[in-house]
Amino acid sequence: MPTGEMEVLAESVEVLNVCRTLPFEMKDFVKKSESLRMKYRYLDLRSPEMQRNLRLRSQLVMRMREFLCNQHGFVDVETPTLFKRTPGGAKEFVVPSREPGRFYSLPQSPQQFKQLLMVAGVDRYFQVARCYRDEGSRPDRQPEFTQVDIEMSFVEQAGILALVEGLLAYSWPAEKGPVQVPFQTMTYEEAMRDYGVDKPDTRFCMKLMDLSPVFSSTQAEFLRSALSKPAGSVQAICVPSGAKLFSAKDLEELKQTARTLFGQELSVVLVRADGTLKSALKKLLSASATEELLQGSGAQPGDLLLLAAGALNTVRPLLGKLRMQCAELLESRGMRIRSSWSQLIIRLLLPLPEDIHLLYTEPHKVRGQHYDLVLNGCEIGGGSIRIHKASEQLHVLQRILQEDPSLLSHLLEALDSGAPPHGGIALGLDRLVSIMVGAHSIRDVIAFPKSFRGHDLMSCAPDFVSEEELKSYHISVNWPAEQEGGEEGK
Amino acid sequence: MPTGEMEVLAESVEVLNVCRTLPFEMKDFVKKSESLRMKYRYLDLRSPEMQRNLRLRSQLVMRMREFLCNQHGFVDVETPTLFKRTPGGAKEFVVPSREPGRFYSLPQSPQQFKQLLMVAGVDRYFQVARCYRDEGSRPDRQPEFTQVDIEMSFVEQAGILALVEGLLAYSWPAEKGPVQVPFQTMTYEEAMRDYGVDKPDTRFCMKLMDLSPVFSSTQAEFLRSALSKPAGSVQAICVPSGAKLFSAKDLEELKQTARTLFGQELSVVLVRADGTLKSALKKLLSASATEELLQGSGAQPGDLLLLAAGALNTVRPLLGKLRMQCAELLESRGMRIRSSWSQLIIRLLLPLPEDIHLLYTEPHKVRGQHYDLVLNGCEIGGGSIRIHKASEQLHVLQRILQEDPSLLSHLLEALDSGAPPHGGIALGLDRLVSIMVGAHSIRDVIAFPKSFRGHDLMSCAPDFVSEEELKSYHISVNWPAEQEGGEEGK
Repeated sequence: MPTGEMEVLAESVEVLNVCRTLPFEMKDFVKKSESLRMKYRYLDLRSPEMQRNLRLRSQLVMRMREFLCNQHGFVDVETPTLFKRTPGGAKEFVVPSREPGRFYSLPQSPQQFKQLLMVAGVDRYFQVARCYRDEGSRPDRQPEFTQVDIEMSFVEQAGILALVEGLLAYSWPAEKGPVQVPFQTMTYEEAMRDYGVDKPDTRFCMKLMDLSPVFSSTQAEFLRSALSKPAGSVQAICVPSGAKLFSAKDLEELKQTARTLFGQELSVVLVRADGTLKSALKKLLSASATEELLQGSGAQPGDLLLLAAGALNTVRPLLGKLRMQCAELLESRGMRIRSSWSQLIIRLLLPLPEDIHLLYTEPHKVRGQHYDLVLNGCEIGGGSIRIHKASEQLHVLQRILQEDPSLLSHLLEALDSGAPPHGGIALGLDRLVSIMVGAHSIRDVIAFPKSFRGHDLMSCAPDFVSEEELKSYHISVNWPAEQEGGEEGK
Repeated sequence: MPTGEMEVLAESVEVLNVCRTLPFEMKDFVKKSESLRMKYRYLDLRSPEMQRNLRLRSQLVMRMREFLCNQHGFVDVETPTLFKRTPGGAKEFVVPSREPGRFYSLPQSPQQFKQLLMVAGVDRYFQVARCYRDEGSRPDRQPEFTQVDIEMSFVEQAGILALVEGLLAYSWPAEKGPVQVPFQTMTYEEAMRDYGVDKPDTRFCMKLMDLSPVFSSTQAEFLRSALSKPAGSVQAICVPSGAKLFSAKDLEELKQTARTLFGQELSVVLVRADGTLKSALKKLLSASATEELLQGSGAQPGDLLLLAAGALNTVRPLLGKLRMQCAELLESRGMRIRSSWSQLIIRLLLPLPEDIHLLYTEPHKVRGQHYDLVLNGCEIGGGSIRIHKASEQLHVLQRILQEDPSLLSHLLEALDSGAPPHGGIALGLDRLVSIMVGAHSIRDVIAFPKSFRGHDLMSCAPDFVSEEELKSYHISVNWPAEQEGGEEGK
């Protein structure tokens, strides 16, 4: 037997506890609704899958700590969660204090504290930090979540990216297959050009192609019109075996996506086994244009070409979306498309040293020292090289973000106390683990998650609180007029 | 030079950032007020002492994690901090939600969750958990604090105590000297009897002695009267070299403590170098009684005896207090009294298996499975073997604690789902580190602490929040009548 091929003959048996009839059976094949699972979370957690998820998460974090703390001299510093409202922090929970009208805020991240720690000479900081975000009801978001928060002094972008590569390579669970380092990197512009999204899934190719030259002298009115507009383009993706595997219904669904989500028409070109085309476009294409189309796109017999003509900022996201839809379709037909891991670093916008002067004149031209970490097409982290000079930070706050700088006066003063250049990154731990274990939702890697409405279905939180209890916080509830308990007008 | 006996001749120098005139100098000998240190915490943290404290704390926690996670198979599980109000949880902060009248609570500990995890089959749980307690203004308390939270299934008291001994022995910083294991253990009754307090400092002896037999046939009226009352006793401590080292003013101060804090008279007996006594009691003592007093107390020439007569529950705490005061006095006169570490486990009250039947009939007679961990006379942790049967837990809630059990119905239901026997402990990390580094306050081992009034003096939290921001939480502020903004009567 799995317990060690032994049978035990008991002389006496002591019943340590009894068990009432459970609301569901502890069997994998018994399908339970999400709300039932959440209400009896302590039973749901007994499933082998949830046990594996929690234990893998614990081990992953432990490995990360070993890497950061033991191998690279980072200091684990706990920062407060009862803090002050951040400018623009509209999604911060408030916590009433015993002083009338004064509230703490639960911060969305330790951003200010990690920068203050750099000023304080803690030159390598990390924390597995609890963060809070009040977004009301949002699917697959949690009001409290965890991020692996990292900040370093005297570091440049390359140093942080190398650290994150090392961190993930070291902590990645062996049973999940190896991590490829160095990670692929691309700029935001490259991502949009090749994949049509800012967080591409690079586990498969199917890149966007610019076929505008093929149609430069086309007779098709809609193509010519699209190309004549500013940033007009004909973009395409080639779906390998798409002509062979997709049904007419599949193609109609792809067209429907284009219409409903993007208000765009999609042109479909099937390459038959004999190399001829099947498409509404066919009659508009000369023999040489057809040849050029096949050459330019690399389409083989059996492949499917999806073409969209219009402004780049529409057709790229459209084809980015269709690319994912096609990958799912191909997988549902038995093809292996996304079987490895894809780690990727995307660089976004914020000032590079040589662009600093543009901050004051043409801020939109400033190139990025911001980066996102993308895993299998999901953003799992982001960071930047920070502004370490008070004058620049003040300018960004006032002129670019148009926030009241007095709320951040302590940070500005701190930067003016000889702050070193510094930068960092934060990884979303819940999302990272959920991708790692292939969970459908981050709720499957959190021991006691809230529902999408922010409720704890087990304990019924949030719950009503007596007026007496609120008195010491100097607040009262504004009951909506139609509800019971509405005593506003007394 | 400390940097490696090198001088660098720079060809060019780049100024990375400038520094304004700082509010205080970064020198150890410059004394700063606590409020100035807190306002510019990012500068204060640059001091070698604060750097040492933060780094030692980080390393200590890392070692604890290695011990628990890598060596003993514990699973690090993060539990929610946005939760439901606990019965009797009067010190819990509330967090308004977007549903009118519904609030989350910030829990004082993960107690419910750790027990639910035992029901869930996570048989070894730990977490370095952020906890919250709203006690208003209290010196050396923080509204948020950290505890090392541990729970195990199928464990008895001895198993948990052995684990904690191993944990502290493994994680204790080498430079702080070794930890003695096993820890000394005593019952609550022994602690009160020998040291007069429930968390004795056992780094030095000076135990309480019962001298009642010496005075059983005394002629002193006040002694006889004290002894005739229920639980009446004459208790004493012997202060080595006290007669030699303490001044008349010192003795007066000790008497003053007895009078002001306990309303008790204190009898002072000095043993002269020649062995004779100097005391107001002397004329009341026969030669044989004097002999018996010296024999019974073990007092040597030069020692000081402090005697108090009265009810045990007064004179024990009094002498416990004086014992500490004398230790401080002796140290101020150059004696080494408290130079090692003292770890100690105290057992308190809660049901032992063989006392379970008493729960229903005579709950006050139930002996303890509760234990406290005491370091150098400070409580740094506590825990118990839990009640794992729903019927017993319900009884305790309803009959003994007199709380509404419906608020804990989810926990009662969970216990009724085959909960294993379980128990655990929680260590106060801030207090533990502060004792370890010899800090005056836990604020010296927390990166960004609040003031004793709960304020963050750097950012001015808690702060005022606009009515607009409170609207989405359906609350409004009850301004006191005399303050501005009082719009209650509109």
